[in-house]
This record gives sequence, C-alpha cells and structure tokens, in this order.
Amino acid sequence: MQEIEVIRIKEDVQLKDPVLIVGLPGVGHVGKLVAEHLIEELDAEQILEIYSHHFPPQVIVDENSEIHLVKNELYVCRTDKNDILALVGDHQSSSTEGHYKLCTLYLDIAQEFGVKRIYTLGGFPTGQLAFSDEVLGAVNNKDIVEQLKDYGINFKENEPGGGIVGASGLLLGLSKFRNIDSACLMGLTSGYLVDPKSAQSLLKVVCRIFDIDIDVGPLEERAKDMEKIMARLKEVEQQQQGMPEISAAKDEDLRYIG
Amino acid sequence: MQEIEVIRIKEDVQLKDPVLIVGLPGVGHVGKLVAEHLIEELDAEQILEIYSHHFPPQVIVDENSEIHLVKNELYVCRTDKNDILALVGDHQSSSTEGHYKLCTLYLDIAQEFGVKRIYTLGGFPTGQLAFSDEVLGAVNNKDIVEQLKDYGINFKENEPGGGIVGASGLLLGLSKFRNIDSACLMGLTSGYLVDPKSAQSLLKVVCRIFDIDIDVGPLEERAKDMEKIMARLKEVEQQQQGMPEISAAKDEDLRYIG
Amino acid sequence: MQEIEVIRIKEDVQLKDPVLIVGLPGVGHVGKLVAEHLIEELDAEQILEIYSHHFPPQVIVDENSEIHLVKNELYVCRTDKNDILALVGDHQSSSTEGHYKLCTLYLDIAQEFGVKRIYTLGGFPTGQLAFSDEVLGAVNNKDIVEQLKDYGINFKENEPGGGIVGASGLLLGLSKFRNIDSACLMGLTSGYLVDPKSAQSLLKVVCRIFDIDIDVGPLEERAKDMEKIMARLKEVEQQQQGMPEISAAKDEDLRYIG
Amino acid sequence: MQEIEVIRIKEDVQLKDPVLIVGLPGVGHVGKLVAEHLIEELDAEQILEIYSHHFPPQVIVDENSEIHLVKNELYVCRTDKNDILALVGDHQSSSTEGHYKLCTLYLDIAQEFGVKRIYTLGGFPTGQLAFSDEVLGAVNNKDIVEQLKDYGINFKENEPGGGIVGASGLLLGLSKFRNIDSACLMGLTSGYLVDPKSAQSLLKVVCRIFDIDIDVGPLEERAKDMEKIMARLKEVEQQQQGMPEISAAKDEDLRYIG
Repeated sequence: MQEIEVIRIKEDVQLKDPVLIVGLPGVGHVGKLVAEHLIEELDAEQILEIYSHHFPPQVIVDENSEIHLVKNELYVCRTDKNDILALVGDHQSSSTEGHYKLCTLYLDIAQEFGVKRIYTLGGFPTGQLAFSDEVLGAVNNKDIVEQLKDYGINFKENEPGGGIVGASGLLLGLSKFRNIDSACLMGLTSGYLVDPKSAQSLLKVVCRIFDIDIDVGPLEERAKDMEKIMARLKEVEQQQQGMPEISAAKDEDLRYIG
Repeated sequence: MQEIEVIRIKEDVQLKDPVLIVGLPGVGHVGKLVAEHLIEELDAEQILEIYSHHFPPQVIVDENSEIHLVKNELYVCRTDKNDILALVGDHQSSSTEGHYKLCTLYLDIAQEFGVKRIYTLGGFPTGQLAFSDEVLGAVNNKDIVEQLKDYGINFKENEPGGGIVGASGLLLGLSKFRNIDSACLMGLTSGYLVDPKSAQSLLKVVCRIFDIDIDVGPLEERAKDMEKIMARLKEVEQQQQGMPEISAAKDEDLRYIG
Repeated sequence: MQEIEVIRIKEDVQLKDPVLIVGLPGVGHVGKLVAEHLIEELDAEQILEIYSHHFPPQVIVDENSEIHLVKNELYVCRTDKNDILALVGDHQSSSTEGHYKLCTLYLDIAQEFGVKRIYTLGGFPTGQLAFSDEVLGAVNNKDIVEQLKDYGINFKENEPGGGIVGASGLLLGLSKFRNIDSACLMGLTSGYLVDPKSAQSLLKVVCRIFDIDIDVGPLEERAKDMEKIMARLKEVEQQQQGMPEISAAKDEDLRYIG
Repeated sequence: MQEIEVIRIKEDVQLKDPVLIVGLPGVGHVGKLVAEHLIEELDAEQILEIYSHHFPPQVIVDENSEIHLVKNELYVCRTDKNDILALVGDHQSSSTEGHYKLCTLYLDIAQEFGVKRIYTLGGFPTGQLAFSDEVLGAVNNKDIVEQLKDYGINFKENEPGGGIVGASGLLLGLSKFRNIDSACLMGLTSGYLVDPKSAQSLLKVVCRIFDIDIDVGPLEERAKDMEKIMARLKEVEQQQQGMPEISAAKDEDLRYIG
C-alpha cells in the first residue's frame, strides 16, 4: 500500500456544474452528519475511495461483523442545479503533513472534475449548551460573502478567533492558490457532543444553496435523543456551577474546528 | 540498519495449507499469550525475525542478563491439519505510518508462504472485572462468519464499537485487498490487566480451529495468580465505588484493541 | 504544495547593509509584537511568504471573514542606517525536523540578501508577575557582547538556563556555521500572558540598534489593557498563595523561549 | 544542514585498543556525569561533533552568554591500557527513528576506529531515596559476564525488567549484529534527581575496567550538595507517606533507562 491510495469505483464520470462539499469528522460531527444525510437522501453514487498511512491504523466493524479499513470516500449526488461531489470519511489525517498531502490530493481530484466552488461543512464550538440555529461562514474570497448571506449564513469579524483547523480550513487555504472560491459553513454547537440539531440548521442552508428539498426526519429523530442528553447535562451544570470535565473534552474537539 | 529489516533464520521452508496467526502485544496481552503458548507447546521452529525503526528504541534483558533488540518473529508450528505461521513480538509499531508499513510486509510474507487464511488474536476490553469466557469475532469477509460460529466464536453487530486499532485490525483491512479471508478473534477481558484466563478461552477456540489438543497448564497457573490480584481489585472496587486510576490505565490499553 | 513553498511577492530587491530581525510567536509574543510593530510603523514592504507542511493545518480568519493559510512572511523596512528584513508569521514549525529545515531556509534567504547580522526577538519567562524592563541577550559570537551592552542589553552567565528553544535559538546556532554574527534579544516577561509592556522595552533597544525613533503608542495602549489583567492576577495570587494552573500554562510557553 | 551532520575536529586519529564509552543524558544523568568527568580528568581531546534534525531545536548558553547548537561529541582519552573514545552530548534523539539512525552512525564511527568493546553508562532507577553503591550490568553477549563481575558489576536475571530504552540499550542491540561485545553499566539511583553519588560508584567500576586512577573530588562535592537535597526529600517523604509528584517525574525519567 502506498502512502496515499486512490481507488476508482466508477470511471468516466461526467458532471454538471460540479460543487464539492466536504463533511469529514470534526466538532459535533456536524459536517459529517450533513454530508452523510445528503448522500443518503439523494441516492448518491460512490465514485472513489481513499486510503492512507495518514489515517489511524484502524478498521470499522459493520452490522455483519465485517470490517473495512478507515478511508475517505467521494460520492456524487445529482440535483437539478448542480452535481454535488460529497467527500466524507471515517477520519481526518492523524498527522500535520498528512493533512497537507490529503487536502492537496482532494483539490487535484476536485479540479479533475471541474469543480468551481467548494463548501466545507463543520461545527463552531460555542462552549454553551444553549441551542442556536445560526450558521457561521468564512471564505477564501470576500467577493462571495454577500451571495452567501442570501442563503442565511452569518459572517462575523475574525471568527472563529482561533482560526479553522483541519481539512475544513486547509481546503479553503489551499484552494485559494488555485482560484477556487471556497467557504467553510459552520453550524453553532456546544462542542461537547455529536449534534444532529445543529446539523439540521446547517442542512437547511445547504438545501437553499443547491435549491433542493430534503427530508430531515432521520436527523430530527437523532436530534431528539441528543436533546434528552443535553437536558440532563444542563441539570448537572446548574447543580455543579461549571463543568470542568466537559470543558476538557472540548479542548480536544477544538482541534478540528469545522 | 534499514527502516525495516527482515532476517531469514531458515531458508526453503515448505508449508502445508499454511494459516497465519498473529499474537502481538495488545489489550490484556491475550493474543500474545495464546500465540506464545502455541509456539512453546507445538515445538515451533523460528523462520525469520523483523527489526524496525518503527519499534521503540529498546532492548529486552533475559535471564542471563543478555539483551536482544525489540523485534517481531515468525515461527512455524506443524499440525496434522495445517502448518501454522505464528507472528509474535515484543512490540507493535510505535508510529501510524509504521503500522501500515509493517502490516504490508507481514502480508507480503504471508503471500510468499501461500497463506490463505489469517487469524489475528487479541483481547476485547469490557471495562468489567467479572470474567467471561466469550470469544468475539470480526471478519474481513462475512462469508466466513458461519464457519467461525461453529468454532464457538460469537459475532455482534458493530462490535467492537470503536473499531479495531493496531495490527489486529489493520491486517484484516489490508488482507481484504489481497482476497485473503481473515478474522480477528478477541477474548473478553477487563482491559486492566494481563489476562491469562481470557487467553485460555481464546486458546480453546484456536484448538478447535486447528483440530489440536494443547496443554493449558502453564496458562492456568498464571491465571490463578492473576485471579488473586483480580479478587483484591474487586474488593477495592466495592469499597471505592468506581476506579478512576484503573480506568485511566484502560484508556492506554484501548489503543490496541486486539 | 511542496514541503516548504516560498512565494516571491517582489523580485529584484536591493538592500543597504541588511540586518535580519526575527519576531515569530513565542513566550509572551514579545518578539512577534515588536517585529509587527516595526513593520507597521516603518511602512514595510512584503517581499516573500513561506508556506509549509511543518506549520499546523490551519487558516486564520480576518475582519472580512476571509481566511489565509498560516504562513511566515518577510518584509523589508527601510531606515537610514540599515535596511531591516523582518521575519514574522502565524506559527513556528510544529515539528522538530521542520524547525531545522525552515531555519536553514531562512538563513539561505538571509545570505541571498547579503545579511551580515541577525537579531532574533523573544521573551524570557521569569515566572513572576512583577514587571521588569530588562532585556537579556545571548549571542553566537562573544565578540559582539560589548557592542550590544551599549544598546542597553544585559548578559548573564548561562542564561537562559534551559537554553533557547525554537527558531530564536536555532537561527543563532545555525548561523554560527555560516559566520553570521547573531544575537537573541529577550524582553523579560512573566511567561503567562501576551506582554506588550515587555515588547515596549525590547522595542526601545531595537530602536537604539537601528538609530530610529518609533511611536510606541499602539503598544502602550495594549500594555495598559494587559496591566489591568495583570493587576487582577496579582490580587488572585495574593489570595491563593501560588498559582498552579498558571504555572502549568507556563510549561507550555517555555517550549519556545524567544 | 543535513539530517545528520558529522564535523571532524581532528583527522588521522590513531588509537591503541580503542574502547567506546557512551555517557549521554539519561536517568539521574549518571552516565553523562561519569563520561564528562573522565573527559575532564584525562585531558581528553575532541575528535568530532554531531548535529542532527533528531535533536531538539535548541541552543545551550555558556558562561560568556555564547550559545552552541545542541550536539553530541566524541573525545579520545589516552590511558596506558586503552584509548577510550567517549561519546557525550546535550541530548539523545527526540524521535524513535532518530535513535536508530544516530546509534547506527555511532557504530559506523566506532568500527572506523576499530572499537572492539563498548560500554554504555547509565542509571538504574530504583524509586527509592536510599543510597546504594551497586552497579548493575546487562550485556549483548553473555560470554563477557564473568569478566565484568570481576570489575564489581552485578548481574540480575531479567533486570531491568522494563528493558533498556534509548541509546544505552540500542547500542547494545545494534552492536550485537556487528559482533562487537557491549555492556550497559548502570549505577543504582533514585530516578528522581541528578545523582553524582551514583556516578561516583559507577566511576570506580570504570576505573577498574581501564586500570586507571581518577580524582573523584569534583563529583564528591556535587554529591554532597545533592545529599542535602536528598535528606530534605526524605524528611518530606516521612511526613507525607508517599510522594506522588516525584513519582510522576520518575515516569518521565524512565524513558531513558541508561
């Protein structure tokens, strides 16, 4: 196995006005939840998968007790307006160098398919358990800010203050050199837990961008389960006045804003 | 010394229906105990050893105060049904990249010897001190599940939930690309301590697979010693209601499920 | 993108008696504050920027919600006495190997421009909240100590005791092999907080070296804000007798003395 | 600068029955203290120095405020019986791979000079503050154990139980492949503090090996200072019944047994 291995599942893929969306694991798994939901609801077709020494040495076990090696995958979802390339996966790179190498590869692939716009999807950790349906944006070209505001995305000076770490940020930074306009769209989330409710807010924005209508039912169900957990956490918070252990967990999550 | 160095101890090894079993250090050292026990009881013959920059910079001291550099070793155990190649060693890779490189090498060697089936042996951490003789399985081809159930191996949907990390998982994932059917067999274990009792349960399954009869005496003796330690830990647990220090140790062990 | 990528912003730069000053992030961000202040006040011109796999996979968000990939930058500030090359940036290398490779590149660039003297700017962590306007020096050639004392720089045997870690130290060490006289100038600082007041002290010394007069207004304003925070910390310190959390933070900061 | 850079200080060095001793930083700095003491007392001559990306990016500041880049150095000490090559330095490798690469280089150099025997010097952490003048040995060829016992070195089955980590162990392991008989000599030490008293015990053994007589005065003075600190620690220990913080420090030190 090479350092990075790309396996083509489908050859000769022709795409109409292709846009890349990226939903890799990160804060609250918000981006991952949205991208995987799109793939499922739009009957997406897988076109390639990527293995790498830069992913953890790990396999995932499925419902049949069958494993697969951790990977990233590219799907295509056909919509009236655009063909959406959706990049999802089990992990981001576990090394700094790997982040740069993998994101460079992702952009090579994006350019091969003629992608002119990239949206990286993620979560913005607030440190607060209170829910907000806000979606925050950052761009690699300020000329697209006004257009994105029309989709209901908010922009705030110098936010996130700690920058954007991981693939969500790096893809914006690296695509700038290739003159591909890109934006990172972040659902506000506590930063403590997987957050399907924040994913719903982000999904609504994504639907507006692509002018599509998607059933949010499955996300809603997961959101209800999480809300019960959140309610319990809030009780604990009121009792304890501050939650040091959960704050510690947040630090870890902050590694991948986005 | 090269990045990875293979030293052939014996040339021109001819094998009958060879199967590779892998018992490297991991959770509860369950896999390591089983593989080393097989090697001893079946008078196995060493055929090669592997040194690497990806192992820790460390030597082990023997009973004569003589050292050896940390390594992995391959033995052959002759049985009526199969010749068993047993991969054992002092350490797994200490780097992510090394895990991928070493497992790729192990599969190259397996294919050189005509291996058609691989069993990686490990422990499945339950976090509970209560003993269970269960052996859990995961496969890289669901077609072999029924056959393995006959040997007394259990299969559970999506278990282990955190996937399988380290060589035990990676060998399954990588051998899938080479069309070698592989399974990870995991003895249930607390995850806190070296567990010769769980190794006994796993050994019984391995004996059924290879249709062999092995003296478990030495493992039983070690198991009795550990049981005394376990009994004391359980007392402490009842007194203390929760065992944070031991839980912390578990996190470390969890790095290598298998 | 290559491992290290240098982008020339301006070609054919001619310099008069060029001196390199280096103000990368470090203890109290003292060096970074001084170098960035010089760049602003002297209307410096950017001549190149450096991207690398050895920087974190991160982008920084500006006031227009536009991102830039983390980088190091080289500016030229024209003064009557010298043309000052100022190296600033978002991060130091995140790997040991990267530190050596990037500093080697910085020296290649310095030599290309004919640099005969290098000043690396940093902070010296005292662990004390009490302010001192002292600037401590270390050199790679003891022949320049007397000259530097005239600028108000103090020298103390074997100080800093833990050596100088990161680019500030490495550039001194590596430039010695190229016969470039270099000094590390360190403003005394608590080591707990960004310290614009220490930066003012260091800036005064830098002004003396280059025989220039610079408005310290902006630094003074930031210093006043920090002083309020310091005052509150001192109160807490008196109440609590020892500040373990802050000491812990200091350990992290100590990674880059300078 | 290359990954590893060897600078020859003196060419055409002719040696009589050369033996390599290695005293790099490690547990209690016992090995380092002994090797540096030998170098000083025997008026050793420096023959080469080694720089590497695998050392931390750090410079050390001397009594004139002049820095040097961290390095390893090789000296030759002339004695009637043998010419002693002494390898000392500021740091061991900070990466696993670097340990293997540097130790391979050290053995290349040893062979170039015709070295037939290597002694790596270190400390053996007991976790006890009580002093012992014992020196423990481990070898890469059990045939030399009896000879070493005559010098007053003790040997114990499987000790150290955790193996020997770092250059002290790796040089034994790697030199075995080159048929160079090597031993690791470890002064017993608490593992908590720099230990010049243990260094004295180890130095006596080294003097017997080389049939030399060395003034231990400077080590004795440092030992007396440390004894005062030890006495105070013992008081604290009696008061506190167990010393968790110091135990924590020990874990770190254990990384380099030797």
